[in-house]
This record gives sequence, C-alpha cells and structure tokens, in this order.
Amino acid sequence: MTNQYDVIVVGGGVMGGSTAFQLAKRGYKILLLEKEQIGGKASSSAAGMIGAQVELHADNPMFQLARESRKQFPALANEIKELTGIDIEYRKNGMFKVALTKEEQREYQQVIETQNRLGEQADWIPAEEIPKHEPLLSDHLLGAMYVKGDGQVSAPDLTKGLLKSAAALNTNIKEYCEVKSFLQEQDQIIGVSTSEGNFYSQYVVVTAGAWTTQLIHESGIDLKGYPVKGECFSVITHKPLISRTIFSESCYIVPKKGGRLIVGATVKPYSFSQKITVQGIAYLLDKAKSILPSIEKAQWDKTWAGIRPQSVDGLPYLGEHPDYQNLFIANGHFRNGILLSPITGLIMADLIEGNKPTIDVDPFRIDRMFQQVK
Amino acid sequence: MTNQYDVIVVGGGVMGGSTAFQLAKRGYKILLLEKEQIGGKASSSAAGMIGAQVELHADNPMFQLARESRKQFPALANEIKELTGIDIEYRKNGMFKVALTKEEQREYQQVIETQNRLGEQADWIPAEEIPKHEPLLSDHLLGAMYVKGDGQVSAPDLTKGLLKSAAALNTNIKEYCEVKSFLQEQDQIIGVSTSEGNFYSQYVVVTAGAWTTQLIHESGIDLKGYPVKGECFSVITHKPLISRTIFSESCYIVPKKGGRLIVGATVKPYSFSQKITVQGIAYLLDKAKSILPSIEKAQWDKTWAGIRPQSVDGLPYLGEHPDYQNLFIANGHFRNGILLSPITGLIMADLIEGNKPTIDVDPFRIDRMFQQVK
Amino acid sequence: MTNQYDVIVVGGGVMGGSTAFQLAKRGYKILLLEKEQIGGKASSSAAGMIGAQVELHADNPMFQLARESRKQFPALANEIKELTGIDIEYRKNGMFKVALTKEEQREYQQVIETQNRLGEQADWIPAEEIPKHEPLLSDHLLGAMYVKGDGQVSAPDLTKGLLKSAAALNTNIKEYCEVKSFLQEQDQIIGVSTSEGNFYSQYVVVTAGAWTTQLIHESGIDLKGYPVKGECFSVITHKPLISRTIFSESCYIVPKKGGRLIVGATVKPYSFSQKITVQGIAYLLDKAKSILPSIEKAQWDKTWAGIRPQSVDGLPYLGEHPDYQNLFIANGHFRNGILLSPITGLIMADLIEGNKPTIDVDPFRIDRMFQQVK
Amino acid sequence: MTNQYDVIVVGGGVMGGSTAFQLAKRGYKILLLEKEQIGGKASSSAAGMIGAQVELHADNPMFQLARESRKQFPALANEIKELTGIDIEYRKNGMFKVALTKEEQREYQQVIETQNRLGEQADWIPAEEIPKHEPLLSDHLLGAMYVKGDGQVSAPDLTKGLLKSAAALNTNIKEYCEVKSFLQEQDQIIGVSTSEGNFYSQYVVVTAGAWTTQLIHESGIDLKGYPVKGECFSVITHKPLISRTIFSESCYIVPKKGGRLIVGATVKPYSFSQKITVQGIAYLLDKAKSILPSIEKAQWDKTWAGIRPQSVDGLPYLGEHPDYQNLFIANGHFRNGILLSPITGLIMADLIEGNKPTIDVDPFRIDRMFQQVK
Repeated sequence: MTNQYDVIVVGGGVMGGSTAFQLAKRGYKILLLEKEQIGGKASSSAAGMIGAQVELHADNPMFQLARESRKQFPALANEIKELTGIDIEYRKNGMFKVALTKEEQREYQQVIETQNRLGEQADWIPAEEIPKHEPLLSDHLLGAMYVKGDGQVSAPDLTKGLLKSAAALNTNIKEYCEVKSFLQEQDQIIGVSTSEGNFYSQYVVVTAGAWTTQLIHESGIDLKGYPVKGECFSVITHKPLISRTIFSESCYIVPKKGGRLIVGATVKPYSFSQKITVQGIAYLLDKAKSILPSIEKAQWDKTWAGIRPQSVDGLPYLGEHPDYQNLFIANGHFRNGILLSPITGLIMADLIEGNKPTIDVDPFRIDRMFQQVK
Repeated sequence: MTNQYDVIVVGGGVMGGSTAFQLAKRGYKILLLEKEQIGGKASSSAAGMIGAQVELHADNPMFQLARESRKQFPALANEIKELTGIDIEYRKNGMFKVALTKEEQREYQQVIETQNRLGEQADWIPAEEIPKHEPLLSDHLLGAMYVKGDGQVSAPDLTKGLLKSAAALNTNIKEYCEVKSFLQEQDQIIGVSTSEGNFYSQYVVVTAGAWTTQLIHESGIDLKGYPVKGECFSVITHKPLISRTIFSESCYIVPKKGGRLIVGATVKPYSFSQKITVQGIAYLLDKAKSILPSIEKAQWDKTWAGIRPQSVDGLPYLGEHPDYQNLFIANGHFRNGILLSPITGLIMADLIEGNKPTIDVDPFRIDRMFQQVK
Repeated sequence: MTNQYDVIVVGGGVMGGSTAFQLAKRGYKILLLEKEQIGGKASSSAAGMIGAQVELHADNPMFQLARESRKQFPALANEIKELTGIDIEYRKNGMFKVALTKEEQREYQQVIETQNRLGEQADWIPAEEIPKHEPLLSDHLLGAMYVKGDGQVSAPDLTKGLLKSAAALNTNIKEYCEVKSFLQEQDQIIGVSTSEGNFYSQYVVVTAGAWTTQLIHESGIDLKGYPVKGECFSVITHKPLISRTIFSESCYIVPKKGGRLIVGATVKPYSFSQKITVQGIAYLLDKAKSILPSIEKAQWDKTWAGIRPQSVDGLPYLGEHPDYQNLFIANGHFRNGILLSPITGLIMADLIEGNKPTIDVDPFRIDRMFQQVK
Repeated sequence: MTNQYDVIVVGGGVMGGSTAFQLAKRGYKILLLEKEQIGGKASSSAAGMIGAQVELHADNPMFQLARESRKQFPALANEIKELTGIDIEYRKNGMFKVALTKEEQREYQQVIETQNRLGEQADWIPAEEIPKHEPLLSDHLLGAMYVKGDGQVSAPDLTKGLLKSAAALNTNIKEYCEVKSFLQEQDQIIGVSTSEGNFYSQYVVVTAGAWTTQLIHESGIDLKGYPVKGECFSVITHKPLISRTIFSESCYIVPKKGGRLIVGATVKPYSFSQKITVQGIAYLLDKAKSILPSIEKAQWDKTWAGIRPQSVDGLPYLGEHPDYQNLFIANGHFRNGILLSPITGLIMADLIEGNKPTIDVDPFRIDRMFQQVK
C-alpha cells in the first residue's frame, strides 16, 4: 500500500488548520478531513482573545505554552494575509481584568506580582484611574489588572486563514467526510476509514476538538476529556464603547472591528448541544450590564454557541498516542484554543518530523492520565 | 386620461392586503405599490394576537370595531387557504390577562363586568386555579382575566395570505416602487407619482402604516400620528410551555405552532429605527421570566422589531380625505393592526364603493383632529 | 436494569417522527435521539411530492406501499394540525409527468395503461390540451401523463409536525445527541451508547437516513445502501405560474404556497456533502427553463441540498434486524421518503407491537441482500 | 438659529462615508443621515474592482479622475485599519480584460496604445500566454489586456470602514432617518427636514446614490440620472481558481479573500428593485462558465443586487447646487463608485472648504445638463 498522503489531519478547526499549515510549509502532502464544514464549530465561536496573562497566570507549563504561542501571532498574521488575503485582525491592544470584589482584587494583585517576577508586564489600575483608560466602565469596579501584552484576533478569520493557507500550499481539504475509525497493521496506523472510504498516510493527527474523545476511544484509550458548551452574543455601536478586552470572572467583553462587541461565555460542561438557551443569554446580559452599563444602548447583533474540549486536569493533550507511534493528538485546549493554536501547530509538526519542540511538551503527553479501554 | 386601474393601494402590509383583497373580490382592478418588499414591516413583526377583549375593553367605538373584526377570521382563514395554500394559523384558543398587582386585579375584574354586560364572555380565574389551565405560570400571579373568544393568527402569514389572495384575483403587486406624491386635477386625485413613474386610477387608498403621515402631508393635511417602535424575541421548546396567550401590562407571550413562543413588545414612540436594542431585549427577558419562569429553559430563536403607526387619540383613521373625495386612508391601528385588518379591508372597500359600512365609522373619520398644513 | 423507555428512536427526520408518533399514539414511552437538529437533513430538503403514481408505477410491492401511504395523508394532516398547530400543506392537486421525447411519450402511455388496469386513474393529455391546464408550460412538450390522485405536502412542516406531535404525546426529544453503538446483552439490544451516555429501552428503531448504514454496521451487518445527494432551488412569483407539480425525467417543479416553486433535484450518488455546486444549479436552471420558460421572470429565492439514503435494489428496508429481535430499521426510501413516511411509521409500530402490518412487508425485510460484516 | 452641525451628509453609502471622513479629518462636526442601514445598498453590493484602466480608458476627464482616485487606496487602507480595525482588503493584483472576439481584441489593443501614450502600463497577453498567468481560463479566449496597476478592495468593508472612521473622529451617524426636503432661508439651505424632525447645519452634501435624484428634485432641479440594477452571485473554492480579476464585456469575475469569487453584474436600467431574477442568475452563470469553465466545480455561495446611480452623459456629478451655494451633490458614479470614492470625498471636502480640488472638476459640475423643474 503506497501512502496517498504524508499526513492525514482529522478535524477542520483552528488546531487542524494550524497543524496542516505548519506541515504544508515544511513540504508535506496533507489530507485534511472535516465531518461537516471547516471552521464550523468551536474555533469560529471563540471571541478571539489572546489572553496569555489574563487567562493563564501561574508559573506552570501552561503559562509557558501560552507565552510562547502569543509570540507567534504577528508573523502568522502576515503569512496568512500574504497567502489568502485574509486579515486575522491581530491586535496587541491589551486587556483589563476587572475586580468586582475585594477577594478578586487581592488575587489579581498577587498574579501581577508573580507575572512581574516572571518577566511579564502587568499593572494594577486602581478604580479612580480606570476612567482614563476606559471611561464607560461601571464605577463599581474596584480596579483592574492591566496586561499590555495580551490582545486578540478574529477567531473565525484565524481559523479560515490557517485552513486556506494550508490549502494554498499542499493540503487537500475534504468537507462532509467523517472519520469512523483508524486503519491499522499490527501496531501501525496506516490510515483512516471514513464515510467516503479509506484514505492512507504515514501519519495521522487528530485535531477534532470535543469530538476527539469518541474517535480516540476507537484506538483503545480513553482521553479523559469532556465537552463544555459556551454561549455568546454580540452587539454593535458606531463608536466603540471600549478599546480593549474587559475580562471578569463571570464574563468578558471583547471589542472587534467596526464597533462590534462580543460578550461571552457561559460554561456548561458535558453538553454537545449548540442551542442557545434563554438562561444563558439572560445571564450574560446581566453580567455585561454590571461591568459596562452603556452596553444597554448598543444594537443587538446575534447569538451563537461552541462546544469546547476540556481535559480532566485542565492541560491540553499534545503528543503521540501511547500505543501507535504514528498517531498524534492535539486536544483539550478548552477556552484557550485560539491563543494556543500557533504553538500547537508548531509542536505537532515538530513531533511528526521527529524534532524536539522548542518547548517542553512532557506535561502535555497523552498518557499522563492514561486509561486503557476495556 | 384613461385610468389604468380602478384603485391604487399604497402600501403592501396587512391593511393594503386586506383592502386590495376585498376590492379584488368585488371585481375591481387593483394596483398595489410597496416601497420595499410586501409584508416587510410592522405587519409581519406582530405577534398575531386577536385580542379584541384583552386589548380593547371599554364600551366604545374601538371595541365595536374590534369585535366585528374578530368575527371575520374563521371565514377569512378559509378563503386565504383556498386561494393561496397559506394557512394563517387562526386559533380561537383564548387569552389570559394576568394580574401582578392588586390594582391590576381590581381593574381587570371591572373590565370583566363591563364586558359581560356587553354580552361578551370574560371570567376571573383566581390565582389558585391558574395551574389547572396553565401549570407553568409564576405562582406570584394574583389571578387572570380569561377571555375564551380571543385568539390568534400568524401575522406574517395573514399579511402574505391577504396580499397573495389579492394577487390571485385581480391585483397587480409592484414592489420596490415608492409613491412620492399624488397626481391631481383640480380637487381630484387622478393617480400617484412614483420612483417608477406615474400611475393613474379612479381611487387611491393609502395603507402605508407609519410612513403614511409623511405621504399624506403632501396632500395638505397633517394626520396627527407618530411611529412607535416595538421589539420582540422568540424562543422554542419541543413541548409547548403554555396553551394560550399570556398577556400582562408589561409584556405578552404568544404560543405559536410547533412550540414557539413570541415575547413582545417594547413601546418606543417617535422612532423609525428597526434596530434591536440590548435594553429592549433585557427588559422583555426580565418581564417574561417573571410571568413564565420556565422560559429560561427554552431555546433562543430570534429578535426583530416593527414600526407601528399610532394616532394621537388612539383611534384609527378610516375614511376619505377631507379635501379629495377619491383619496382614502386607513391608518393608526397601533398594536391592533392584525386584529383590525379584516374589518378595515371591508370598510375601505365599502367606502370606495360608496356603500355604508356595517359599522359606524364616524368616530374614525380623518378630519376629527384635522389640521391643515400651512 | 429497568428500561427508561419503551422504544428509542434513532434519528429525528420524517421516518423517526412518523414512527415515534405512531408509537406514542399507542401509548408507548419514547426517546427520540437526533445527532444534530431535528428535521435538519434530507427530510426538510424534500420538495414534498406525494407522487405515488408518478414516481412508482409498475405493479410491484413498492407501488402497493406508495398507494397505501398516500391514503394516510388527509387524516394525518388533521391530526398534526390538531396537536401542534402545524399545517403540513397537504394538497391533492395532481401531477403532470411531461414527455419531452417520443420515447418518454410511449413509456408514459404504457404506464397509464398499467395503472388503469390496477384501478388507479391516470390520463394522457396531448400536447395541444396542455395549455388548458397549464398555460405557461413550454410548447415543445409532446404531452403529459396526468395523475389526479397525487399531490403534495410541505416536507419541512410534515417532518416538524410529526416530531412535535410525538413530543406533544409521550416522546422525549433530545437533539445534539449522537448514537455511537448499541448496548447488548447476549442477543438482546438493551439500549444505545451516545455522546451523552447510555440510554436503555425495550426496543430500538433506527431511522437515521443516510447515516443508518454506518450505525448498523456496528451491529454486525452491512445494509447495502449508499447516500445520494440532491440539490434544489426555489423561486417566487406573486401569481402562481403552475397549479400542480410538473415532473420530467430531468427535473421537477413543485408549486408551494404563496407562489413559491421548488425546482429539484440533482442525483449525485455516494456523496454526503451538503454543498451546492455551480454545476448543479446550472443544470437545474437549464432544465426548468426548457419546461417552464416563464420561470425566467421569477424572483430567485434560495438553494439547498439533502442526502438521501438509497438501497442497492431500490426498495426500502423495513423490518427487524436479522440477529436482534428488538432492533428495527426503516431505511432506504431514497427520494420517496415523504410519500412513504406515513405507512413507514404504521408498519414500524405494528412490527414493534408484534402485529402483522396491513401490507405485506416481506419484500422489504432487512436480510434480503444481507451480508454479515467480517 | 445656531447650527448644530457644520455639515450634514445625506446618505450612508461609500460616498457619504468618504465625504464625512475627509471632512471629519479636517475638523468639521458632521451629521450623517441614512434612511435605512449604513452600507445597505449599492456600495456593499459592489464587487470592489479598482479598474481605473479597465473600465475607463479614453483620454478624458473621467480617466483622470479614476487614476487620481486609484492612487489614494494604499494610504486610505492604512488610515481605516488604524481607526477602526477594518481591513478593506486592498490589493493591487492587476486585471485581465479578456477578448472573446476579433473586434474586442482590436479594441483592447488600441486602448493599450492610448494608455501607454498616457503613461500608464497596459500589455497585450496573447492567447497562448494566458495559461502562464491564469491556467484555468477558457482556451477560447483570443488574448487579454493586462493592467498591472488595477486591483480591488472589499466594497462592504471599504464602505463600513469609511463610515466607522468618520464616526471615530467627529461624525454622528443616524440610521433609519429619512431626509424629506431641504430647509431654506431665502437662497440659503439651512438644514434638512427628516422623519425624525429638523436638523440644522452650515452645509449639506447629498450622497444618496440612486435616491438622490428624487431628493434633489425637491430643491428645484432635475439631475438627469436614473437607477441601474445590477445582480451578482458568488462561489467558493478552497484553492483560488484565479489570481486577479477577469473582466469581459458581459461579466467580470473578481477573486476575493479565502477563495471566494464574485461574478457580476447584470445591467438593468430604470429599476429600483433589489430582487434577484432567475434570468439574471442564468445569464451570469452562462457567461462565467464560458470564461472560466472550472467554476462549475465551485460551491454556490449567494446572490444579491444593488441599485447604482447613473447620469445621462455617463459622468458623475460633483459640485455645488446651481441655486444654493451651500448645497453640494456627489452622484452618478454608476459602476465606478468604489473606485471613485476616495477622490470624491477629497473633492467634496475641498469644495465645501472653498478650496480648489487637486483635479479639474468643471466637467462634473451639476448644471452641465441642468434643467429647472417647472
């Protein structure tokens, strides 16, 4: 059996796009399979925050991963624009993590200290100085952690941009093609069985988001992950109400191009349902109004939901399958998928090539909580 | 100048449709002009309540009009179904007008008395009996006025149904054709000037909703009316949460086919804006939850807004122009347009034919608050 | 293990709806599982023809099935309207199967003879008489087979109507819940394993359309079927261009309510892709213009596609699984799913109850071309 | 009467946006009024070609205007991105004007000579060399005029970008506010009368596209222009089929970001209808296939239409109203609105400031074909 492809990538979201793009750049011939439409699930539902310091703050492997990934965006934005015409709307416009309680204030101030010690800039903005930066925020805020180095992209454009960049190089994208199981010969994966027949390759990478667990189950291990639904809505004003992301424990508000704001996201574990609930919208509306009262005057835009893959210990899975050396998995990025997508693509490409990634990926290996099926 | 048409109807909403349909049935040749798309404005935005007794309760001309109009629906539904295949979803499934305060309770009980005296059935349902009829309503309600004879239709289907019925008979519908002014010879209107040129007819009827005032201004009188924006949203469940319309002072919830609920409507006078505000949605969500708590579990569907024409004294305008005997106006139905559309079409057709309408229309004549322009 | 449900129905399309509805009417407690949204696939993509005589004409089991199913629609329409408010738009308005070649003419005239012999009305309309019935058809037609007894429904409304009727009785509908495999104890199916965990029942019925084959493969047999993509488009006029379905070998044009026409459908075997191709639209446009030239003046509405399940011998599968007496399958209806849905629901309910169906189902049994997997 | 605003701009399309933006940059306080939603009409319907040499080739004032406007895009793209985050997708990727007949070949070769003489680059690509540049074009083409200096933007993003840039500076945008007439004192315009009341300003600029003629009629002159409807559709592929705009006499195909192609546009004079006709789509499909056969394999995306303002002599109107020195008009750009929008904004700002524009605008003055109304 001659291999039709060097690598088959299973899943057409931001991780599949990033992985296919990095591999295509290195000259590999790729087949990317997506069971519905590319960019149709969680990747395009994200608000697009690049919140390396705001979401991930402790001195741990995840923080290293996040910082390293954040660095990739400026160059990546240029590459995608060049290859596809797509602007991923990368902006390093900073973030405010606002404190609504004394407890949050203490916690954020500690995080600032830790981050400063680790060489990252982060500052405490006392309540009275908030209006200088963001005049429309509620006057009930106790202050904010200000991270200059964080920023944002357009998640749908990043996802589409990565996938179309891969296509412009050497990636064949097939949509509406569902991978059912892996084809194996002894302890080798030799391809995949799909709704359109079998495809053969030297390597297979699974980047199927919340649908990864089921598929990997087929290969004999349980990934220890679960889906987490997140609902969002967006509104529009002619003049922007805020100039950077406002992040709180209960919701975030992300300013997009042309005066649009994305408000997200609810957290509903164990649900694959993409339906928007009245409850979710009511909750987000309430929280957003308490942080940015003038959002009431904005124009309602739309609602949507995404299903994010979460691992049991909160760390992503990045690595080889314990039993098959040519089967790779990138999964469990939960709500940091957009932020972590550039480094994930680089790591997966390195692992497949047999190179050592630029960052230690041992904490993210697949078998760390490994459990054999049956 | 030979007339191309017997009657030109200006405005492709529910009033234009009803008027054109009744005239077409009587053999007249009609031209209906709509500046954008038929059924594109307030008519299709309505929740479709037929709330003759719930919305209009006093012993006054409006109540007579409403009762007479309500009677027309069963036959009208059949005619439209026959001619176009469109089901207007007419249901005489009753309404609950729920009391949240002692004051409302007293008021509704008085209304019940009045209506009973006028020969209409209306009953008081005490709080403890509400669950027998509507088990999911809030247990904070003090009771409800129950009107068995009211009901509902699908407003978009009624509107489209009337217009397509007229088209199936003898009405030529032109969309994207805006009437700019009236063509006159001495004190006769002989047609209209539009963005597509002039059209001639023996009679002109203006049924242009909130856009009527401006157009009529051209003919030398001020109609004394103003636009009132109303915002709505809808949700969906598999099993219906309620079996009839729940009406309160602050919002109404109308059960539609297949488990859909329409929640409406905000009241924002003097606005032509069809934008949905965050404020409007937050308000309606809040009110709906206080009446029907389990709406929280429903699936979010969509939002929309309509601009309704309101007259200064709250009564519609139905009649001839004071200065031109062949110019007719039907306007100012505010939020009772769907309910009043059948009788309005009949009245306008009678007036144009020179017949006496079945109901006294003197209270609705155009010049009752008449003011000459300059 | 106590059963949570009497029957689990896998698949929320028209077959799942019909089966759940018939079972719910007989008092069973049903769980219906749908991997995405109910009515989201082929069932709602259909043009809704009830073409018992036009599509299926030979003296064979399929024709018997079709005739029996066609009889059910009037009563079914009433039941659904009553339970859910949904009008399925049933109309027995006949069909024209038009001949474009001498060969087609001969063939249709033979079919008419056969059908007349079988007691069904069907008439030949010579070219010169076509304009009396359908004045806008092309004058290149050689004649038409006219079937008075065929007609149509709205496929999306029938599908939703059946499902919501089932929900109104005793069916719990879960969307975004994908069935992965069957739970078994010895040779008994005891439930299903899904993306939301396990559910248990006495019987399982699979009505998953084109996705059935894969799922059934899990149970050890190959169903011998394949997906067939069909693309459609629709247009709108104010006055209807035709008054009944015009059917030809290359396309059909179905008049819907309010002047809408559905033109369908391409036939692309072995594709699960729901994408509309330029080629498909160009083909249908071309064919539709050759039959109904005035369609050129109509307003473009929209395009869509559905994936229909076809069996290898062209007959549906209706029956028990050869190895598991409590696992049932209804599949392979290809482009007659709407027509055959009422009888399919009745047959499945009878089979599950252990009753003999009103029609001989032996030709449709699962194991007729049965092949064991591995 | 104190002026509320320095300038009122009537019309929220690309011309209104460009004019407001240039004026806001110079420190003026602007009110922009739009009768529906900004960017809702022709501006956002355009394919976004910057075809200075392809569309306008003779040595005439229009060509000067086009060349001057084309120069503005690189800087404008940066300004808009900076102010709003919006990428207008400016690309100077050249255009091919393909010859399908000997006559077209001769004509284009002459145009090339003229343009070379005027200092602009333009080259003839013989048929056999076309595949080197665009391998998928039809092999029936006789050659192509290749203009390296032309290119494209995203028309909806340019329009929104200009408007939101103006808003970010000193422009108040009001949507759903229709200007009915001008307010005047003697021979001075002092403001406008709208559906939301009167607004006052020192200057008024009318940039209302195809709706300008009617409004200007109010001020006593006929603009001698008419609407021209244009229909378009778009398709998508993963890998781009072409790398630059392919322009022919009957249609153009414009490659957009991410593999999308826009095919346009029909030319239907005197129509305000935004409806898509079956005829229009069939025509464009046919033409596009004859130039780019492989478009058949693309995925159908969507259809739309725009109403473009055309002047009787084909030149735009740019200047002061003949009777009112403070009323300005920019109109009649037909299908070169996107290309001409930057220079139009600059010219209007110069004229209002009393400065001499950088280009001679005498050929575009309002009263060149001036006709007094009544």
